[in-house]
Amino acid sequence: MREVRSASFWRAIFAEFLGSLLYVLLGLGASLRWAAGPPGALGAALAFGLAQATLVQALGHVSGGHINPAVTVAFLLAAQLSLPRALGYLLAQLLGALAGAGLLYGVTPAPVRGTLGLSALHPSVGLGQGTAVELVLTMQFVLCVFASYDERRDGRLGSVALAVGFSLTLGHLFGIYYTGAGMNPARCFAPAVITRNFTNHWVYWLGPLLGGALAALLYDFVLAPRPRSLAERLAILKGEPAAEAPREAPPEPLELKTQCL
Amino acid sequence: MREVRSASFWRAIFAEFLGSLLYVLLGLGASLRWAAGPPGALGAALAFGLAQATLVQALGHVSGGHINPAVTVAFLLAAQLSLPRALGYLLAQLLGALAGAGLLYGVTPAPVRGTLGLSALHPSVGLGQGTAVELVLTMQFVLCVFASYDERRDGRLGSVALAVGFSLTLGHLFGIYYTGAGMNPARCFAPAVITRNFTNHWVYWLGPLLGGALAALLYDFVLAPRPRSLAERLAILKGEPAAEAPREAPPEPLELKTQCL
Amino acid sequence: MREVRSASFWRAIFAEFLGSLLYVLLGLGASLRWAAGPPGALGAALAFGLAQATLVQALGHVSGGHINPAVTVAFLLAAQLSLPRALGYLLAQLLGALAGAGLLYGVTPAPVRGTLGLSALHPSVGLGQGTAVELVLTMQFVLCVFASYDERRDGRLGSVALAVGFSLTLGHLFGIYYTGAGMNPARCFAPAVITRNFTNHWVYWLGPLLGGALAALLYDFVLAPRPRSLAERLAILKGEPAAEAPREAPPEPLELKTQCL
Amino acid sequence: MREVRSASFWRAIFAEFLGSLLYVLLGLGASLRWAAGPPGALGAALAFGLAQATLVQALGHVSGGHINPAVTVAFLLAAQLSLPRALGYLLAQLLGALAGAGLLYGVTPAPVRGTLGLSALHPSVGLGQGTAVELVLTMQFVLCVFASYDERRDGRLGSVALAVGFSLTLGHLFGIYYTGAGMNPARCFAPAVITRNFTNHWVYWLGPLLGGALAALLYDFVLAPRPRSLAERLAILKGEPAAEAPREAPPEPLELKTQCL
Repeated sequence: MREVRSASFWRAIFAEFLGSLLYVLLGLGASLRWAAGPPGALGAALAFGLAQATLVQALGHVSGGHINPAVTVAFLLAAQLSLPRALGYLLAQLLGALAGAGLLYGVTPAPVRGTLGLSALHPSVGLGQGTAVELVLTMQFVLCVFASYDERRDGRLGSVALAVGFSLTLGHLFGIYYTGAGMNPARCFAPAVITRNFTNHWVYWLGPLLGGALAALLYDFVLAPRPRSLAERLAILKGEPAAEAPREAPPEPLELKTQCL
Repeated sequence: MREVRSASFWRAIFAEFLGSLLYVLLGLGASLRWAAGPPGALGAALAFGLAQATLVQALGHVSGGHINPAVTVAFLLAAQLSLPRALGYLLAQLLGALAGAGLLYGVTPAPVRGTLGLSALHPSVGLGQGTAVELVLTMQFVLCVFASYDERRDGRLGSVALAVGFSLTLGHLFGIYYTGAGMNPARCFAPAVITRNFTNHWVYWLGPLLGGALAALLYDFVLAPRPRSLAERLAILKGEPAAEAPREAPPEPLELKTQCL
Repeated sequence: MREVRSASFWRAIFAEFLGSLLYVLLGLGASLRWAAGPPGALGAALAFGLAQATLVQALGHVSGGHINPAVTVAFLLAAQLSLPRALGYLLAQLLGALAGAGLLYGVTPAPVRGTLGLSALHPSVGLGQGTAVELVLTMQFVLCVFASYDERRDGRLGSVALAVGFSLTLGHLFGIYYTGAGMNPARCFAPAVITRNFTNHWVYWLGPLLGGALAALLYDFVLAPRPRSLAERLAILKGEPAAEAPREAPPEPLELKTQCL
Repeated sequence: MREVRSASFWRAIFAEFLGSLLYVLLGLGASLRWAAGPPGALGAALAFGLAQATLVQALGHVSGGHINPAVTVAFLLAAQLSLPRALGYLLAQLLGALAGAGLLYGVTPAPVRGTLGLSALHPSVGLGQGTAVELVLTMQFVLCVFASYDERRDGRLGSVALAVGFSLTLGHLFGIYYTGAGMNPARCFAPAVITRNFTNHWVYWLGPLLGGALAALLYDFVLAPRPRSLAERLAILKGEPAAEAPREAPPEPLELKTQCL
């Protein structure tokens, strides 16, 4: 438990709390309906994406900028962070999201609050369909996160923050009409708590968590496999990174396939 | 056929399948008309562009992230991949697009499906005009792909994924009213199969393939010629990259012309 | 006062004047209501963000491209520029903003001028709520500025100009309905002077200045602490940068946390 | 006249022709009004900006990707290209723009053509006001081009193509209601020729050329002065770059001012 006693661990936990607070506050707030009319699906899709981009830019070097349980669980499955850290991140994300939704409730005039951006299925979208939509949207998002964060990638990657943020915007452009485009259980949990409305709430946990897990497995075992043994993976999960020290050669860089020769 | 037996070949084929599935699913889905109104031309144009950007970011280091027969054929013409690989990519793109359109059909309520984003000519746009529009739109897109993927380029390029994605968004902002902005035969093929509507379907193959080919020839022989012999090119097409080994000097880097001195 | 006699100091002052002029002119101008209808909240949000992005790109190497008193005060609190320079920047920003608003008044037909983009609270948003909104919006923006400008950051940052600009766009997508999304006291001061309307004007100073200060303290002392003594910080504020010369080792680079091992 | 006999000179001329053709075709086309409604000011502003971004990405390493007489004249004033090359670029830009507008005329149904995106002053905007708007919009654009192309710039610049393209989008978000947002004499010249309507046409030459010239002078002599003698500048204009060979030291890099110490 050496990790838990380090300052950088608690900085990361705080970053996940602050990031989730801002993500939920700004994203839900930009989805509200004012008398003057909302900015519409396009405005909300941009707001969620730019919130993710801004927070990855601002906090990516502190905690990684997950601010999303589906991302943290996917990284856990891929053995890229320890179990204690993952639990800390998840707790910070849920508390941060609640704080963000509460703050939004406080600064918003009562008639505008509505359901505070609660995610809900379109009346003619079934539970299976909604879960599948959340799964696929989160899968493309986590695939983009894994590829952008892959420390073996090299060159012509541009801004990780923008790539990841625009992938979230893409998911909203598709999903807003189907499920409200959750793609983040913490974002869906907070307004459900505040409005005490948990109708079909499990869809917004099952879909994103399965989608993130599928992306992690596809990326780590099929698309860009990592040569790590099970023992190495378990040591990382237990927070014993020293165990994987005897890595003799740095990994081969993965460049954009400009030519396939 | 050594290439076909490598794991990286099949990873690339799978990446093209998965990428085309997601491109078609997300792009067509964001073009559907819900009762609440569609996000409009701007939302659809952004969705197709951000889908391309996200998938180039996520899969570019696995397969190149073509997810478009017009791109694969253009790279084949420029001798940047072998004929067996090109055939594998094309088959994976068509099957992936079909799977994506089928998945969209499954998750979408029946009244919303409509023609499932089928590309169609505006009633007052002729066949020649439509083909010309598809040709020009795909030409600018493939030119941007070739310039962004050019391994001789150096510096100030930023994210290849965003550059290429925004070029596709540009094509949609222009072309949605003329032809529905296909710019990708696989994207047009899938809804045509599912809705069994092949009216003017050839326009969406001929235009993009000619436009991609024109871009490949312009880029490779006029704008930024590559000093490769016909023998070298043929060896690459046959999947014998070793033949081009005796390249003594690395190519001269191509930088942004900040000054023309 | 050696700094004040250098040419680079006055170049920076001029850059802040010119940048604030263009920011206010272009941002306010894109918010006006023409008979043909305004570009709407989305257009205005993009205009302010792209103005910030363009001016950071154009002037970032001359003055840093603050063009915002909240940013300059935050950098002052973090001891990243001297007090004389900060005062010069603030004066240039206010004069530049006035010049920009005056120019806008001159080129705009009288019926279109309206309140010239004056920031105002929504009738049902209270003073405390409005101040809190301005505080939070500016805090996320200045956090993004600090993280993007951090000279210890390394790799996968992409364009600082775009990151910072899109963070401002995000703030507008949320805040336009609450407070008009000021996020910059100079931008709010200029139309207030020209229309002689200072109703609740203090909200647009207090909220952004507090938000920027909070971001500076959070970033510099909690999220990514800098090992600098109080004496070093005071020397910088007095414009005596030589005092911090005996920094023996360069700071450790802060990379995106791709893995948390 | 050695320069004029080189293949790279003619490649650059062809790139300017092709780029101007595509810029005018795609930008004007995305501004047309279809029965289904236009994409609106936002769509047109994005189309012009993404066209510039795509063409700088695709052609920037061939010709610099000016595709705009105001940019070429500004670079000429700053002695960054020779007079023969500038004349060649200008001619190619005008001919390319004409070809693009002609192609647009050919592929567009007659009732949709309208004035083919001709730039026109809003009825209540005066000639002086319109010229001032075009001047300021082009000035911020050319400032962004000069800063992004400055070979002394270093680090955190991101994609030059996107920075420059979004600066053009910004100009359109402001200027569409005032003047139609020309910002490029070739773009305004082509529809004027085809519709034989030269009302106030000089505004779209005078404003952008003055704005580009002002940006060139401000950047080169005030904001980021270049230590070059008049003799050096004249030699470059005459196409004798060898004359500036005895530059003993490379220029000092210009980085983003993250700290002003």
